[in-house]
Amino acid sequence: MNRRTRAVRSIVGPVLRPGVLLLLIAALASAQTNPASAAARQWRQVHEREILAEFVDLLAIPNLARDSANIRRNAQAISTMFTKRGAVVQLVEEPGANPVVVADLKTPGATRTIALYAHYDGQPLDPAEWASPPFTPTLRDKPIEKDGQVVPLASAKFPLDPEMRLYARSASDDKAPILAMAVALDALKAAGLRTRSNIRFVFEGEEEAGSVNLGRILAAHKEIFAADLWLICDGPVAQTRQQLIAFGARGVTTISVTTYGPRRELHSGHYGNWAPNPAMMLVRLLTSMKDDSGRVLVPGFYEGIAPLSATEKRAIAEAPVPDRELMLELWLGRTESSPAKLLDLIQQPSLNIRSLASSRPGALASNVIPATANASIDIRLVKGMDRVKTVERVIEHIRTQGYFVTDHEPPAAERMAHPKVVSVINSEAGYNAVRTSMDLPISQEVIRVVESARGITAKWPTMGGSVPLEMIEETLGTRTITIPIANHDNSQHTSNENIRIQNLWDGIELMAALIIM
Amino acid sequence: MNRRTRAVRSIVGPVLRPGVLLLLIAALASAQTNPASAAARQWRQVHEREILAEFVDLLAIPNLARDSANIRRNAQAISTMFTKRGAVVQLVEEPGANPVVVADLKTPGATRTIALYAHYDGQPLDPAEWASPPFTPTLRDKPIEKDGQVVPLASAKFPLDPEMRLYARSASDDKAPILAMAVALDALKAAGLRTRSNIRFVFEGEEEAGSVNLGRILAAHKEIFAADLWLICDGPVAQTRQQLIAFGARGVTTISVTTYGPRRELHSGHYGNWAPNPAMMLVRLLTSMKDDSGRVLVPGFYEGIAPLSATEKRAIAEAPVPDRELMLELWLGRTESSPAKLLDLIQQPSLNIRSLASSRPGALASNVIPATANASIDIRLVKGMDRVKTVERVIEHIRTQGYFVTDHEPPAAERMAHPKVVSVINSEAGYNAVRTSMDLPISQEVIRVVESARGITAKWPTMGGSVPLEMIEETLGTRTITIPIANHDNSQHTSNENIRIQNLWDGIELMAALIIM
Repeated sequence: MNRRTRAVRSIVGPVLRPGVLLLLIAALASAQTNPASAAARQWRQVHEREILAEFVDLLAIPNLARDSANIRRNAQAISTMFTKRGAVVQLVEEPGANPVVVADLKTPGATRTIALYAHYDGQPLDPAEWASPPFTPTLRDKPIEKDGQVVPLASAKFPLDPEMRLYARSASDDKAPILAMAVALDALKAAGLRTRSNIRFVFEGEEEAGSVNLGRILAAHKEIFAADLWLICDGPVAQTRQQLIAFGARGVTTISVTTYGPRRELHSGHYGNWAPNPAMMLVRLLTSMKDDSGRVLVPGFYEGIAPLSATEKRAIAEAPVPDRELMLELWLGRTESSPAKLLDLIQQPSLNIRSLASSRPGALASNVIPATANASIDIRLVKGMDRVKTVERVIEHIRTQGYFVTDHEPPAAERMAHPKVVSVINSEAGYNAVRTSMDLPISQEVIRVVESARGITAKWPTMGGSVPLEMIEETLGTRTITIPIANHDNSQHTSNENIRIQNLWDGIELMAALIIM
Repeated sequence: MNRRTRAVRSIVGPVLRPGVLLLLIAALASAQTNPASAAARQWRQVHEREILAEFVDLLAIPNLARDSANIRRNAQAISTMFTKRGAVVQLVEEPGANPVVVADLKTPGATRTIALYAHYDGQPLDPAEWASPPFTPTLRDKPIEKDGQVVPLASAKFPLDPEMRLYARSASDDKAPILAMAVALDALKAAGLRTRSNIRFVFEGEEEAGSVNLGRILAAHKEIFAADLWLICDGPVAQTRQQLIAFGARGVTTISVTTYGPRRELHSGHYGNWAPNPAMMLVRLLTSMKDDSGRVLVPGFYEGIAPLSATEKRAIAEAPVPDRELMLELWLGRTESSPAKLLDLIQQPSLNIRSLASSRPGALASNVIPATANASIDIRLVKGMDRVKTVERVIEHIRTQGYFVTDHEPPAAERMAHPKVVSVINSEAGYNAVRTSMDLPISQEVIRVVESARGITAKWPTMGGSVPLEMIEETLGTRTITIPIANHDNSQHTSNENIRIQNLWDGIELMAALIIM
């Protein structure tokens, strides 16, 4: 087998290496020692059609955070799902915020409360980029990248091929856990298995908009949200498809950076060389922020980062390394900070250009000096960094590049008074990173329960994605641990988001185990 | 009057300084020594309504170069306009090319032929950016930037306020000269003024698409296009509103540069720091091409540039300097290569980012590492530079930045085989710069005729914009001189293109004088 053949096979197959395969076999062997997850599997095997139908109905409701009418339809649908399963449901509301759905299962004599969190809103999208409409859930026999074909829902054969994918916005992020929790309740009831803790399901409606209102909602209703532990069900499992337990998550904040050139677009022939080009200004400014090896050059950016504990370092060292397989899957000829590995790198902060725009792109481009240029940037924070301070440092860095910095569209006088003008807008304020010690008894208990349901897990001190753990921990004085269920290749946050059917099934088993912990 | 008041007055008023004002008064006083332009003025003053109506009909025909059906409607309409004015008209056609309309006026006994060139196609556009639809010509009492209000064509009062603007794609660039030539013929006929040379009107249909077929059309039909002098009627007059004679134009070529990151967009939390960000790669690459003072850093970029003659240097030194007023008009706090002035700078080549695009902009932005990033760049060339060689130099520079350069969408194997991959596509091939000596007798004659019609002129060795002079001169062995008529603030090449009514009237007078030269 030559180099090329090997590369192709690695792309086509799942992300597996021999070592990882052994781990997974071990995991399968050790699974099902948990009676709840065994019951969930039995239930699911005979109810796949109904489970899929209920999920499709939920995914068909559009869920962009700013679409208030549809957000409310989602909240009502979820309320109905949990009410009919015996939970006491309320929509927690604050003015100007999307409702948080809280569904409680009281357990007589329980001495603790476990909250299970997911969010029902989804990332913004451009429908034109989707192979099928984002709110028309579409089953495919394989991923689109592997030429997966549509399987009409009406004619799908059950049991489903577990490698099938269901495509829809929020199929993975983050309606899958909501569905999994609901189905787990059915399975537990059918098997006569009882909860041991009070269980509190919490479903947020604006996580993808930066959870801008979650802090004040929690603060205004602490008693409704109180729990000894919050289990955060969001994000993907490890790239090896191993179940992941993440003891923290990076924080996030977003800035929009706009440079200004001439008042109106100018003919690039008549004014090229003379009128400052805002796109050129922007690329120079962005280049000043990061070096070619991915290190952020903003002074002080890495200051104050909390070091990893011995347990955390060991967990990282023991985790499988999917980097090489991921490079093949993603057609990469290098990584940004080679030779550092992915799991090490997401323990560090990042500064990422998430979009660039200036004038009309592609075939619409014309010979102009643009009037403005915009970059949208997200900054991922790790424990010890403060998001407000970090944005201030970025702004200070921009000032040292010769810019007058405003937080609004600069009027004529402001633009003429300064050689270089930029607006920096921090609209999605975001939140800081959080990390729960792996050494706590509750952390060890969660590891035991998850491994009894799903086999050996990957244990990460911090996962790369962001969830609003900070405001949960700080407002409620509780702890958070993140238990994701989605496949890593779910196209979360972009077009053609999907969930692998097996991940949905695994998720139901995992949720059943956690609900009776 | 404080600094602020002065600034505001300068923005609101035309671009005038006391010295320039004197020049314009002198120009007005010296005008009309040309009988043709005097006749044109008289004709226009009593036919404004009909002239505007004919122009509106022409502008209402969409004219994007790739819209073949409408391009043909334009060619037919222009053919009709000149046939009914006594010219012998033919559509010159080559397979795959838009027709060139040639309208001939033979003069018995004439010993020379003067060609007057304009183009009837317009720049690509995004209708959403326009205040009124681009192909619904719309009259406003003032420019949009000065809060100009729509004046319905049916109720417009004649004579029109000459500061009114007519908004439509190609109102300035470049249908205004076509209309002006046609109306000039009416005026000359009414006044009984006869041509002295053979006059050949040539109207191209794909100038804004880079005149990709003009060379082969001219070569295949040399006898149809032969002329002793080509007068190029395209572009704007000086920013001072003085009539401009440009003895050359910068050349142009366009490249599209695309960098590649992961195969699909990735969640910026889970992969930020690890997956190379193509937007970051692109901004670094673009930054390497130019320094902060506007100097292009591509090695060899400035090699071979032809020096200016003494006459050319003197013409530049004598030209009014509109820079400060333009900065106020355009809300600029600096120019790119200060303290060099605009007219000096357009004698130099430029490298301009005309658009940037990566992932979804603005409110659609989501937390992803984009899959690709694109910059569209136009390069303006001056006499002595070769466009093919220049693009090669840019590509060589990109290679020295560590890139594997392709001219197509790179497949998986190519992307994995190289750490950094970029595609560079030179689709709008363009043309080189041309400069006619101001010292030639024909150049001096053109100056005399234009000044007899329009007063003292600005005389530029090279204008900043590009017209396909090279292929005209090289294929036909002729000379070119450019005589624009549009206002400088016409928003040529962008949204809300317009012509100032007085510029249209002036253009008619100028064309009348040139037709009988």
